[in-house]
Amino acid sequence: MKALGPIPSGYEAIGGVLGVGGKPVTHWVAQAGGETPLFLYSADLVRSRVAELRAALPEQVALHYAVKANPFGPLLSLMAGLVDGFDIASGGELERIRAAGLPLGKVSFAGPGKRDAELEAAIRAGVTLNLESAGEARRAIAIGDRLGTRPRLAIRVNPDFDLKGSGMKMGGGAKPFGVDAELVPALTREIVQSGAEWRGFHIFAGSQALDAEAIAEAQGQTLVLAARLASESAVALPHCNLGGGLGIPYFPGDAPLDLSLVGGRLGEQMQSLPDILRETEFCIELGRYLVGEAGVYIARIVDRKISHGEVFLVTDGGLHHQLAASGNFGTVVRRNYPSAIATRFVAPVEEEASIVGCLCTPLDKLADKGGFPIAQEGDLIAVFCAGAYGASASPAQFLGQGPAREMLV
Amino acid sequence: MKALGPIPSGYEAIGGVLGVGGKPVTHWVAQAGGETPLFLYSADLVRSRVAELRAALPEQVALHYAVKANPFGPLLSLMAGLVDGFDIASGGELERIRAAGLPLGKVSFAGPGKRDAELEAAIRAGVTLNLESAGEARRAIAIGDRLGTRPRLAIRVNPDFDLKGSGMKMGGGAKPFGVDAELVPALTREIVQSGAEWRGFHIFAGSQALDAEAIAEAQGQTLVLAARLASESAVALPHCNLGGGLGIPYFPGDAPLDLSLVGGRLGEQMQSLPDILRETEFCIELGRYLVGEAGVYIARIVDRKISHGEVFLVTDGGLHHQLAASGNFGTVVRRNYPSAIATRFVAPVEEEASIVGCLCTPLDKLADKGGFPIAQEGDLIAVFCAGAYGASASPAQFLGQGPAREMLV
Repeated sequence: MKALGPIPSGYEAIGGVLGVGGKPVTHWVAQAGGETPLFLYSADLVRSRVAELRAALPEQVALHYAVKANPFGPLLSLMAGLVDGFDIASGGELERIRAAGLPLGKVSFAGPGKRDAELEAAIRAGVTLNLESAGEARRAIAIGDRLGTRPRLAIRVNPDFDLKGSGMKMGGGAKPFGVDAELVPALTREIVQSGAEWRGFHIFAGSQALDAEAIAEAQGQTLVLAARLASESAVALPHCNLGGGLGIPYFPGDAPLDLSLVGGRLGEQMQSLPDILRETEFCIELGRYLVGEAGVYIARIVDRKISHGEVFLVTDGGLHHQLAASGNFGTVVRRNYPSAIATRFVAPVEEEASIVGCLCTPLDKLADKGGFPIAQEGDLIAVFCAGAYGASASPAQFLGQGPAREMLV
Repeated sequence: MKALGPIPSGYEAIGGVLGVGGKPVTHWVAQAGGETPLFLYSADLVRSRVAELRAALPEQVALHYAVKANPFGPLLSLMAGLVDGFDIASGGELERIRAAGLPLGKVSFAGPGKRDAELEAAIRAGVTLNLESAGEARRAIAIGDRLGTRPRLAIRVNPDFDLKGSGMKMGGGAKPFGVDAELVPALTREIVQSGAEWRGFHIFAGSQALDAEAIAEAQGQTLVLAARLASESAVALPHCNLGGGLGIPYFPGDAPLDLSLVGGRLGEQMQSLPDILRETEFCIELGRYLVGEAGVYIARIVDRKISHGEVFLVTDGGLHHQLAASGNFGTVVRRNYPSAIATRFVAPVEEEASIVGCLCTPLDKLADKGGFPIAQEGDLIAVFCAGAYGASASPAQFLGQGPAREMLV
């Protein structure tokens, strides 16, 4: 039997069935007309996560939501009342923000391949551009000139360090992201001299780290780098995005991040800021950490079959909605996400079974040889940690399946 | 410098620019209103691949197209005039076939998680169901009874061997696919006794193999297994789908399959069929082999940047259209697909560069440290082998990007 990842806190049984948002998941499936698969996002769990962060982080550090983690419209609307800003990664995400009626002046836009049309849309909307290269800076300035609009420009810095133990390293060497640190002062001066509104730095060292010490160390390095670059640029730093990096546990053995340590250390760092950063506004930008554990993916067992003695619970879901859970997105060795039989949530482990999807490929596995109660056709399964990089980061059209329904509950 | 995969034959420069369908790719981009990224599928290359197959395969083996490889409507219409049948993997693919106006009686439907609604739609349409389990067989029979329609039923067999060296093994042990061989005779008799139209076996041992000997061996084993199971079932075998497995070269060092060996050996096997298979109709079912090399993915360079001495060609494309080429779908070690600077197709290698996508993740790499001519912003890049499992097998909505345009040319 292989271990399953840890089920996040906040999930309890209601009448033996997994509960989300105060109701059993069977209630939400019925609300969806019986349709499965289904993503359920718990508004309460998002709110409590934000409250934990507000309590742990120093007050002068603003909280931004990285839309890429989950761009579902109702979730964006919920976030609007909870966070201080949004970070987007494409013109498509700008349209999502606009469609949700959120204030565009609180939005920043990072991403290495911004087209001219995207730069123009962002400048017209008053969105801050986190510039990824000198070439992009010049294109943005030229577009601002052409529009007669003063663009709001920041530089995304490719830091000369990385976030230790992060799932994805975004700094510390040659990268397509951001401007190499040593080139930043000259580009800063060029932007200021262009007459653009200078918005400061965006420094993102990595993501999905569970080691609080490593995050605190990277945040400390980020502040030192920001101070050095501001000083070398001889320009005040109005704003500094410290990046994110706060991870969530997905796999067996993963432990939740020590948020109080991260918040405490950042608080100390804020107390002893170098002079040049005393007027700077700071934010951290989080996606997965805000919404990842608040989401559950529900699918229905269509077939229970035994092949050569192994039990397969074949569902109507699969990697077309949950690519990362299938082990096919950014992981080398496949490990199990947390999962459960949602309709037998408190039943004891009775057998070893694999939960697979409906796609005709051996890649389509949601849980490999886990321990579960004995489940039958019609039972619902749950894959946890489905709130971030789930629906929007999976190949929904694969094998003609189409997207799953999403509900904020 | 890292090696790139081999560019498939059939691609030549026209005025220095990569040609597809007799025109430079710049022509097709202009036809698309200048919009990139773009998938181009060459009808000529599909036709010539089918012609090669027809010449190599024995006449009595029919050729089916596996829609999952590429369900683009105009391509399905083209295929209708070239192949003898279609295999689908979902109710969604059935709708694609219907929308393209293709004859539904030539369609078979395999896949482990068929919902009742999908079974019903297939039975109504006269589609042959390749049954994946005894439970699915009983559901199909019950639905046929309810509809008063005689379902066309075949059994997908989980063979007791696999296809050696295949990219994906679909047999040889516990699998969610098909019915374990030893259970097939009893289920065959149950289906025949139900009054359903008995359509035979579907035996799929693996896919994406480049070793012709291994394919020939698996086909031989498939025929032996089919004969044994037909004999044990004491029922004639009207039809047998021999599976596919014919691979295409993607990576450095891969060599094209020796098709004449596969065809020759299958021809010999057809000459010496056991008596019980003499009246059986045979087909092979191919997806990737028919369309994979006929497709090219074209994206535009938005930014040329140098970070710590390394060159990054940042494009407006990425893994949201080409997940497998980024190394994030079913591969453990990332290797380079064939790629080129399409607008400098005959220029010599001048530098080492990485082609990356526009997504804000280090996973979004289309070519890692390959050798290319020096390319500039505005140049087009090409990723080859994009005709199968490209557009439909990638997370198009990731980071708000949306799907790429597709054109059959």
